[in-house]
Amino acid sequence: MSVKEKMNNQQGDEFDGLTATDIEAQHPADAADTIEGLDIADQVKFIKQLPIKDAADSIAEMDDLDQQALMANLNVGLAARVLEQMAPDDATDLLEGMDEDLRKALLSRVPAEDRAELKTLLTFDPDTAGGVMNTEVVILDQDLNADQAVAKIREEVEDKEIPYYAYLTDKKDRLVGVVSLRDLLLAKRGVTLKELIKTQSLISVGYNIDKEEVAHLIAHYNFLALPVVDFGNRLLGVVTVDDVIDIIHEEASEDMQTMVGAGADETTDSPVVFSVKKRLPWLILNVINSALAAYVIHLYDDTIAAMAILAALMHIVTNQAGNTGQQALAVMIRQLAMEKFDRKKAWLAVFREFRIGFINGLLIACMVMLTVFAFTSDYKLASCMGIALIFDMLIGAVSGASIPLILKEIGRDPAQASSIFLTTITDAVGFWGFLGLAGFMLLN
Amino acid sequence: MSVKEKMNNQQGDEFDGLTATDIEAQHPADAADTIEGLDIADQVKFIKQLPIKDAADSIAEMDDLDQQALMANLNVGLAARVLEQMAPDDATDLLEGMDEDLRKALLSRVPAEDRAELKTLLTFDPDTAGGVMNTEVVILDQDLNADQAVAKIREEVEDKEIPYYAYLTDKKDRLVGVVSLRDLLLAKRGVTLKELIKTQSLISVGYNIDKEEVAHLIAHYNFLALPVVDFGNRLLGVVTVDDVIDIIHEEASEDMQTMVGAGADETTDSPVVFSVKKRLPWLILNVINSALAAYVIHLYDDTIAAMAILAALMHIVTNQAGNTGQQALAVMIRQLAMEKFDRKKAWLAVFREFRIGFINGLLIACMVMLTVFAFTSDYKLASCMGIALIFDMLIGAVSGASIPLILKEIGRDPAQASSIFLTTITDAVGFWGFLGLAGFMLLN
Repeated sequence: MSVKEKMNNQQGDEFDGLTATDIEAQHPADAADTIEGLDIADQVKFIKQLPIKDAADSIAEMDDLDQQALMANLNVGLAARVLEQMAPDDATDLLEGMDEDLRKALLSRVPAEDRAELKTLLTFDPDTAGGVMNTEVVILDQDLNADQAVAKIREEVEDKEIPYYAYLTDKKDRLVGVVSLRDLLLAKRGVTLKELIKTQSLISVGYNIDKEEVAHLIAHYNFLALPVVDFGNRLLGVVTVDDVIDIIHEEASEDMQTMVGAGADETTDSPVVFSVKKRLPWLILNVINSALAAYVIHLYDDTIAAMAILAALMHIVTNQAGNTGQQALAVMIRQLAMEKFDRKKAWLAVFREFRIGFINGLLIACMVMLTVFAFTSDYKLASCMGIALIFDMLIGAVSGASIPLILKEIGRDPAQASSIFLTTITDAVGFWGFLGLAGFMLLN
Repeated sequence: MSVKEKMNNQQGDEFDGLTATDIEAQHPADAADTIEGLDIADQVKFIKQLPIKDAADSIAEMDDLDQQALMANLNVGLAARVLEQMAPDDATDLLEGMDEDLRKALLSRVPAEDRAELKTLLTFDPDTAGGVMNTEVVILDQDLNADQAVAKIREEVEDKEIPYYAYLTDKKDRLVGVVSLRDLLLAKRGVTLKELIKTQSLISVGYNIDKEEVAHLIAHYNFLALPVVDFGNRLLGVVTVDDVIDIIHEEASEDMQTMVGAGADETTDSPVVFSVKKRLPWLILNVINSALAAYVIHLYDDTIAAMAILAALMHIVTNQAGNTGQQALAVMIRQLAMEKFDRKKAWLAVFREFRIGFINGLLIACMVMLTVFAFTSDYKLASCMGIALIFDMLIGAVSGASIPLILKEIGRDPAQASSIFLTTITDAVGFWGFLGLAGFMLLN
């Protein structure tokens, strides 16, 4: 019987003791999943049964919306105690998502010292280093030796989430160095921390640096954490690698949305109005662009009126070129996101797409020509299709690969609406090429 | 003067001593970037000047292709010494990318012990836990107490990359527990490791588990590392969080490629033939699908022959519906990739897209109706456009949101070719709706 089934089997307000123990024994990330599976009323009853620290750890691991719903349903006293037990960065995230009244009520109930810290953290933009940092940092005196430092860390470790780095500051709280537990364990007896950090090139970030930039630095250097400082180089906190993983995951997948004109930050939880606002401008751009392509078709009204089958066939040409271009587009956008930009390599990649487009274009064109000829026995019509297909697929491949580079060169997001720009080109060129050629070859 | 400029200023074979020192002082990740910026001949000269450990660390941080080119250009003796200095997982990655001859030549020159280990690592599939794991693990005896354990770690730490976890095994090398340095520093004096791990629910993965699954587990539990075991639960190595970041980045962005029918593993460095093979099947599917839509148009040849402007306008309808659908598609695919699947929530998200599609459809339809009426003064034609637009945009929104769910429900990749399926629906429905309506309203 799963934990959830046990929950559903319980009677009245009484909980099966074993079930509470089950959740307690779970990793907080798993406990969070279990709790999310319950009804809100059961979630509340359940949190009441857990030791407060376990409750806080589990709630911290829940999804944003589930977390908010649960906190809003707990009585304020319990919610405040949960908040107090959380790491300050998790507590801040939670407070940021709440409505004003609940936030004030909760803040008024946590101890004065925690309240001051949370209020400070709430002033940072959530998309910056300051907004994602953890303030539970081990700070050491430079004049300690390695053994004294380990002893000091040992005293403080209970309160700190990840004690694998300790930071050294001067008398004005300015960051002067960082030592890892590894450094301390490796150090010769009696060596002071000051000597250990003498040749160190210290890497830190300002609190206002974009969180994606922070994530890139941590990934680039394979760090477990990166210190965050203010303009006076005073240590404010650290961003840890576990926070960075979510940031990287979100960022890496947002290009897929922006390339078709959805918002980078849209999720299935976003309010409908938010999504409408993000998408409508791009849909309007798209309608203007497709009106352009429609105008190209309109130029050939006479051709189409004389031979209506062209209206059907032209659609195959542009659809195929559009798809070819999107394949090139996706590969190129991803490359720009994964690697540092190398202009020469990037334009070589456009040539690579040209070759792929040529081979695929040739094969598809042959296939389509044979099919059209088999159905219509019109070799001229079949030739028009073939030539227009290769031509437009090549245009698609080169455009798809170039658009992100051009957007990048002019300082824009390489993905933004790129699919819309691409389709405009492949449609307009495809209609013009095919209808122009057909008018010339078939009707004169 | 930057390091690179200094390099370019050097004369003949003589290197400026300061420059070599500059690179030595850099973090290996930065040194790798600097080296990649040099010509291959300068890269080789430069590696020769660096202490062998620094050379190995820097090369390990270089991009795959640059790394391979450099190794192939070093003399075999130096290349073998570089390999020997690398972490076994980095050395294995390097060997995997080499041609057979060079790999054999290098392996024959590394010490017998290292050779045996590398050969074993090479047998693992590079896309599995075994293929990305690190074998430099601290293993402790369960009967040690915490202080003895710290002393033991201190002895071994120099050779190990990340000594933040130590693993406990029984007499048959079977994994029985894991302790973090944090646990050890927190432990009461005299407590044995056996007691420390008594209530632990140990999480490990088999060597043949997909690397993306491993990445998800590490991200889910906020671990710094995860032990890898064989079928007999014997400890083989660990996957560390820094390796996982790259895996997550790659995985999160591959949906963008598969949704339009490019290969998940394509990059701008892939051979042209590789990309052609990946894309051609989907282009063929796309041509078949667009032939279906073309057939729908063909059914209305008479309508189009009578009123050729319809061929231009129908394109606006389907293009707009396609874009609307792609926005829904992208948001849905991303959601499925980011969160664990919740069927009820997923179908509620389809309803959300329906509402967004309705609002955007209404606004775009009004805009287009007014424009068409302004140009043609034909209120019937304008109405046809408006009705067909709303209808097809709604179909697009619902299809775009549903296709990934349907693919998932039947056990397929939710992204694979989804954009191609979507366009087939929006095109066929759009042409049928618009031309059918126009034929009925305008020509009867």
